[in-house]
Amino acid sequence: MDANNRIVVDALQSSNFTRERFLEIRAGGIDCVHATVVIWEDARTTLDLLGAWNRMFREHDDLIAPARNGQEIRDVVAGGRVAVVLGFQNASSFEDDLDLVEVFFDLGIRVAQLTYNIQNHVGASCYEPEDAGLTRFGGYVVGEMNRLGMLVDLSHVGERTSLDAIDRSARPVTITHANPAAVWPHPRNKSDEVLRKLAARGGVLGVAPYAHLTGGGPVAIEEWTSMVAYAVDLMGVDHVGIGSDASHGWDEEKLQWIRKGRWSHVTQLGPASPDAQGWLPWPDFFKTPAMFPTIEQGLRDRGFDDAEVDKLVGGNWMRIFDEGLTPHSDSRPSVVRASA
Amino acid sequence: MDANNRIVVDALQSSNFTRERFLEIRAGGIDCVHATVVIWEDARTTLDLLGAWNRMFREHDDLIAPARNGQEIRDVVAGGRVAVVLGFQNASSFEDDLDLVEVFFDLGIRVAQLTYNIQNHVGASCYEPEDAGLTRFGGYVVGEMNRLGMLVDLSHVGERTSLDAIDRSARPVTITHANPAAVWPHPRNKSDEVLRKLAARGGVLGVAPYAHLTGGGPVAIEEWTSMVAYAVDLMGVDHVGIGSDASHGWDEEKLQWIRKGRWSHVTQLGPASPDAQGWLPWPDFFKTPAMFPTIEQGLRDRGFDDAEVDKLVGGNWMRIFDEGLTPHSDSRPSVVRASA
Repeated sequence: MDANNRIVVDALQSSNFTRERFLEIRAGGIDCVHATVVIWEDARTTLDLLGAWNRMFREHDDLIAPARNGQEIRDVVAGGRVAVVLGFQNASSFEDDLDLVEVFFDLGIRVAQLTYNIQNHVGASCYEPEDAGLTRFGGYVVGEMNRLGMLVDLSHVGERTSLDAIDRSARPVTITHANPAAVWPHPRNKSDEVLRKLAARGGVLGVAPYAHLTGGGPVAIEEWTSMVAYAVDLMGVDHVGIGSDASHGWDEEKLQWIRKGRWSHVTQLGPASPDAQGWLPWPDFFKTPAMFPTIEQGLRDRGFDDAEVDKLVGGNWMRIFDEGLTPHSDSRPSVVRASA
Repeated sequence: MDANNRIVVDALQSSNFTRERFLEIRAGGIDCVHATVVIWEDARTTLDLLGAWNRMFREHDDLIAPARNGQEIRDVVAGGRVAVVLGFQNASSFEDDLDLVEVFFDLGIRVAQLTYNIQNHVGASCYEPEDAGLTRFGGYVVGEMNRLGMLVDLSHVGERTSLDAIDRSARPVTITHANPAAVWPHPRNKSDEVLRKLAARGGVLGVAPYAHLTGGGPVAIEEWTSMVAYAVDLMGVDHVGIGSDASHGWDEEKLQWIRKGRWSHVTQLGPASPDAQGWLPWPDFFKTPAMFPTIEQGLRDRGFDDAEVDKLVGGNWMRIFDEGLTPHSDSRPSVVRASA
């Protein structure tokens, strides 16, 4: 938090979190990071991961602290630490059990992506050849997330399931880490229709320097900020933020897990192409989260003014966190809240 | 097994199995029953259910024994006992883990319905408003079942997912408990297209006296055997058997579990209608499995000859069990067998 009480947010990091990662985050001036807990895990294994996060918060309590809403983020940052909002990149932790949405809310989860890279009980991923939209269970899950104050994340979610979720959700939804497909076509990037409708309902897109999402390789900062300008033109400057998708510290074995979990005996490329299957290099302007200031400078160089940059580097995410992460005590069981 | 070495098969019962149920089965002259282990359970809970079956097999070893293929069925029946083939009514036990197909095969499971009543990782149920077909994971699951010798069951499966699975499977697939929708329209009953294609690929349909599948109420034996005649005309007499869907001994609380598992906080009707939400009465000709001979007599009265009746009451299922339940020792890991 700087002199203007501005809070810088990275809306998605999926690294192998260690002290080194948190030091990079702090070095980059990032005040708040949404950190991925779950990729493919079921409920039971998620408990282990949350246990590991509990230990990590204790071990690095000079650097980081968990935060569950806008005020808690501000309090952590005011104390000189990085606020960590925990989230899922998959509804796998909910299994087929609607009650588990509230259970994991109670454990501090504040963002859940509806699918990772396959069809699950909730809907279709962006890689499934056919997408029949949000399922009946998926509709109930979105209703529970609305009731509790857990943000819906559509980053890896299929086109039709995404549109259904935007329609279904009574509160703004997010895409924490993806780029406009009109700029860089890729199953993981998002159509103009999804982005427009998301913005019309108050949502925010987190744009990413992740090379698979920028045309299959690292790009120059000018290309990347041109993409930001495209998103801002399309969605409005109140609806774009940063979600780096930083995923550092994983080895090749973990990469295979990330791509195919337990669901396949043959190679799955995920976002990659047959010619470039491994981890891609990060762009020169964002080798690690420590380089976050380079993104901010790039936005200024592109011509965004101070107020716009403030929104893009964190203000819009803070608005969503303030509006969407209603404390649990405000929620009324079994009633879908009409709005935030 | 009678003097003609004929084996009578009920291809699906989903009761609360107790000694009383097994006595009814024996009283009805049923030699072999495919018994449902799983409705909604995950892998871990399935282990508990299999543990309970192990205890049940020990406790009632004068009456029943497990069987994993045609020869084991014949051996059990030759010893004067009822052969029990264990199966799943849901791929939920496989979760999103392809390795679990073989694990549950090793534990004796020989039939798995791809979905129960919602979308899962494998495909869409007959009740999901949209059906995008067999998923990528679902295709792998069918491949594993083919490799191992575990029968694919499409009874509660959606139309498009069913057609995809018939296309995808290298071995004949089954519908253990459903009726032709052309006779009794209902989401759980099957279109002529599915039934024709299933038969063309060597599969078998088990027709059911279950009242929800016979127009929403119990019918007379003559109406029911007319439906059998329709199925035989459509599919051929080699492709129709009996799968009663007998589901006795459950209370109302269990009925709610059967219909909505953990996935909903509001009432789910399953196969029922708002006007008749509870368990429906069974038809006069099949109050319990002890009345199985009434079905056989009805088929004779309808005009089926001895050879045809033999096929309908068990011969066709035994052909599928002989062809489809290849012993595990014959299977070759990672190779999809082209045929049985």
